[in-house]
Amino acid sequence: MDLNSDLGEGFGIWTLGDDDALLPIVTSANVACGFHAGDPITMRRVCARASALGVRIGAQVSYRDLAGFGRRRIDVDPATLTDELRYQIGALSAFGPIAYVKPHGALYNTAAVDADHASAVVAAAAAWELPVLCQPGSVLAGLAAEAGLRVVGEGFVDRGYLSDGRLVPRGAEGAVLTDVDAVASRAVRMARDGEVVAVDGSVLSVPFESLCVHGDTPGAVAMASAVRAALLAAGLPLTPFA
Amino acid sequence: MDLNSDLGEGFGIWTLGDDDALLPIVTSANVACGFHAGDPITMRRVCARASALGVRIGAQVSYRDLAGFGRRRIDVDPATLTDELRYQIGALSAFGPIAYVKPHGALYNTAAVDADHASAVVAAAAAWELPVLCQPGSVLAGLAAEAGLRVVGEGFVDRGYLSDGRLVPRGAEGAVLTDVDAVASRAVRMARDGEVVAVDGSVLSVPFESLCVHGDTPGAVAMASAVRAALLAAGLPLTPFA
Amino acid sequence: MDLNSDLGEGFGIWTLGDDDALLPIVTSANVACGFHAGDPITMRRVCARASALGVRIGAQVSYRDLAGFGRRRIDVDPATLTDELRYQIGALSAFGPIAYVKPHGALYNTAAVDADHASAVVAAAAAWELPVLCQPGSVLAGLAAEAGLRVVGEGFVDRGYLSDGRLVPRGAEGAVLTDVDAVASRAVRMARDGEVVAVDGSVLSVPFESLCVHGDTPGAVAMASAVRAALLAAGLPLTPFA
Amino acid sequence: MDLNSDLGEGFGIWTLGDDDALLPIVTSANVACGFHAGDPITMRRVCARASALGVRIGAQVSYRDLAGFGRRRIDVDPATLTDELRYQIGALSAFGPIAYVKPHGALYNTAAVDADHASAVVAAAAAWELPVLCQPGSVLAGLAAEAGLRVVGEGFVDRGYLSDGRLVPRGAEGAVLTDVDAVASRAVRMARDGEVVAVDGSVLSVPFESLCVHGDTPGAVAMASAVRAALLAAGLPLTPFA
Repeated sequence: MDLNSDLGEGFGIWTLGDDDALLPIVTSANVACGFHAGDPITMRRVCARASALGVRIGAQVSYRDLAGFGRRRIDVDPATLTDELRYQIGALSAFGPIAYVKPHGALYNTAAVDADHASAVVAAAAAWELPVLCQPGSVLAGLAAEAGLRVVGEGFVDRGYLSDGRLVPRGAEGAVLTDVDAVASRAVRMARDGEVVAVDGSVLSVPFESLCVHGDTPGAVAMASAVRAALLAAGLPLTPFA
Repeated sequence: MDLNSDLGEGFGIWTLGDDDALLPIVTSANVACGFHAGDPITMRRVCARASALGVRIGAQVSYRDLAGFGRRRIDVDPATLTDELRYQIGALSAFGPIAYVKPHGALYNTAAVDADHASAVVAAAAAWELPVLCQPGSVLAGLAAEAGLRVVGEGFVDRGYLSDGRLVPRGAEGAVLTDVDAVASRAVRMARDGEVVAVDGSVLSVPFESLCVHGDTPGAVAMASAVRAALLAAGLPLTPFA
Repeated sequence: MDLNSDLGEGFGIWTLGDDDALLPIVTSANVACGFHAGDPITMRRVCARASALGVRIGAQVSYRDLAGFGRRRIDVDPATLTDELRYQIGALSAFGPIAYVKPHGALYNTAAVDADHASAVVAAAAAWELPVLCQPGSVLAGLAAEAGLRVVGEGFVDRGYLSDGRLVPRGAEGAVLTDVDAVASRAVRMARDGEVVAVDGSVLSVPFESLCVHGDTPGAVAMASAVRAALLAAGLPLTPFA
Repeated sequence: MDLNSDLGEGFGIWTLGDDDALLPIVTSANVACGFHAGDPITMRRVCARASALGVRIGAQVSYRDLAGFGRRRIDVDPATLTDELRYQIGALSAFGPIAYVKPHGALYNTAAVDADHASAVVAAAAAWELPVLCQPGSVLAGLAAEAGLRVVGEGFVDRGYLSDGRLVPRGAEGAVLTDVDAVASRAVRMARDGEVVAVDGSVLSVPFESLCVHGDTPGAVAMASAVRAALLAAGLPLTPFA
């Protein structure tokens, strides 16, 4: 199983999350490319450290929105978006070989349901023939597969799922899980059995190939660490996706 | 002889210069990379058109300064500058193969005399093993050569020269030449003989390998066109530098 | 009748439209505040020139979107948007007294139909007790009136209207009128009679208090000038709205 | 004695320093205005809290440099700089009454020695007739006084001084003091006697009217708190400068 996390999300003097703590935990690093976060110094450092640790580098691409951390949908036309995403992938490629593309924040959510913005992500990834890390069953997953790209289905160990496979919206009950042991057990089930229990108790069968952990709070790092330990204890090797 | 020009220097809705008129005139296009000008859509378009015309693409890298068009020196530390320049080169590489690096505006002038900022340009170009287009005899030219990079000496057909090979500062008498015929003749002498007459009448011998023309006014395009015609009429083939 | 136009929409080295040609034509200047366009030097110059000509200054506020010229809707939360708009109004107030607020581009269109973003415009204008220039009958007009703000209904002399009072969407047939004489006659009818003929031939009765003209092309300046001349010839005085 | 501190220096999702801890300690808040840090939401919140606590608001103005946190000198021409500073002051004025201007970072250091950039600060402050908080004896202090502005001399409780009254450059021995008790005693002497002991042991007599404390680390907040307690214990009232 692959473990991925969002990294390099500071900007200039400002930091966010603990990259140094997360990098030894994960197998794939989604590195911010400067549009929602990520200055060139940070990008170089994270890529160098990831490379030294054998962690794979992915381009965490975003809407152009430093002030909003890429968390607001922008109604940018798909052609412009495509070029903006290509720009970001190119920029990150200056600091290391890129293994995949993962959209960030509002773009992740939008591309999961909107064919226009999903197509822009696909077009950008296709220009580099890169795999796309995204939600299984999403519009983006479908279009990337149609385009012949490798699609890597991602699960969130600490987010609640609806019975139709979508995430419980933030703010709603059950959206975020905070019990470390429960999350660790859940991660093992997701990785070993391809199953996750939805908020209504139903069991979803989803072919997760990567699990996303977070590192933006001390508690998050501890949880990521626990997830890693639980997966290893269950005999599940941690390796980047094939 | 190579003819180069600054291109793709709009941003979003704003345009600057006439890229479409200049591209058939030059053999090398210095494409803005987003830090002083240049949005991803423009970068893609200019690179595509350049490629279709057989015009070579160079990364016109800059200080991070959209508001000042890269014309103000910024006292950025060299390590940060290096990474910012690598970022720009990487970003442009998303839209076509890059053949060289040329610093823009205040960075061009600073790197001509300041070893710290010149070293940053050299380090960025070296990461891609790219030639550096710069002023012959400048600090940048010296450091790039020391680093084993190909140095391409550039002449300005419409700028006055001091007897020591530096440009007459803008604003001083003789800084800018506006007579099209005189400029065209001068370009031929620069290209054929490696000579340029300084403002004090002395003749400088400089091994120019590329001549820079501008396109930001209708008059500038006409002058660039006249330079091209004069060089061809003199039997000097226009080809990208080797 | 008041004539308004978008001004100061350059940024740094880039210019857009002919502020100097438009300022003697209009009675109200919608000055860009730095979020979609407008650098401080330009803001000061336009405000100084407007003041010298007796032209009133309005804050043309926008989403934070230089790269997209404020033409893309951004799903920013209303509280953040309110503060961003207050910031812009405050910034412009450094260069002259502000007489009104007019949202720009995508914010104009969004606030016409979306209560959340309209409320943000209202809250920002209310902090300064400023009138709001907007489309008659829009959600923004309604909410501004409810909040006790002065609402100034604006008409577009060169845009087609649907029979329900909304504009014909750009790109659709009849969206933009280009015949100078027809536009000038139309402006007179809008100003004198409060009437405009919709694309289906129906006559709308709308209490326009300001007419918007453009200046971003040579043709636009000529049209603005013709509108002004036609209004004066019809005996309609041009004065800022009360 | 006045106690001032730099506040509101986050941007979007990123935070810096502990505004909530510092505000009850200081009497004057230097609020970032968006050019080196400070988004509108943060600006409003800090101003509202400062106002509720009776803390005065100053405009902490900067070069346009989010990526470098305003710590790099930019060779911007003085006219442009003046307008950029006016823009920032105006923007902050949207969120509360402004009592003074203090340049930030590289602009603080540059304006202390460079008449061009100091004049820009003076011109911007003069447009609002605001006092200028700066280093006693600096070029900025002199020019502000000449222009008839109120000059408020500022001391740094935790920075070493040279015998000529300038600060020990960062990185040099004695540049930063870290002993809380020593700093607190020093603050008392600065406030009560107008004296500070330089690194060479000489005693400088300087008419400090405000002391600057920092809050960007937990240790810094403790030190600021100790300085406040020591001043009060010495019977020195903490009030904004007159």
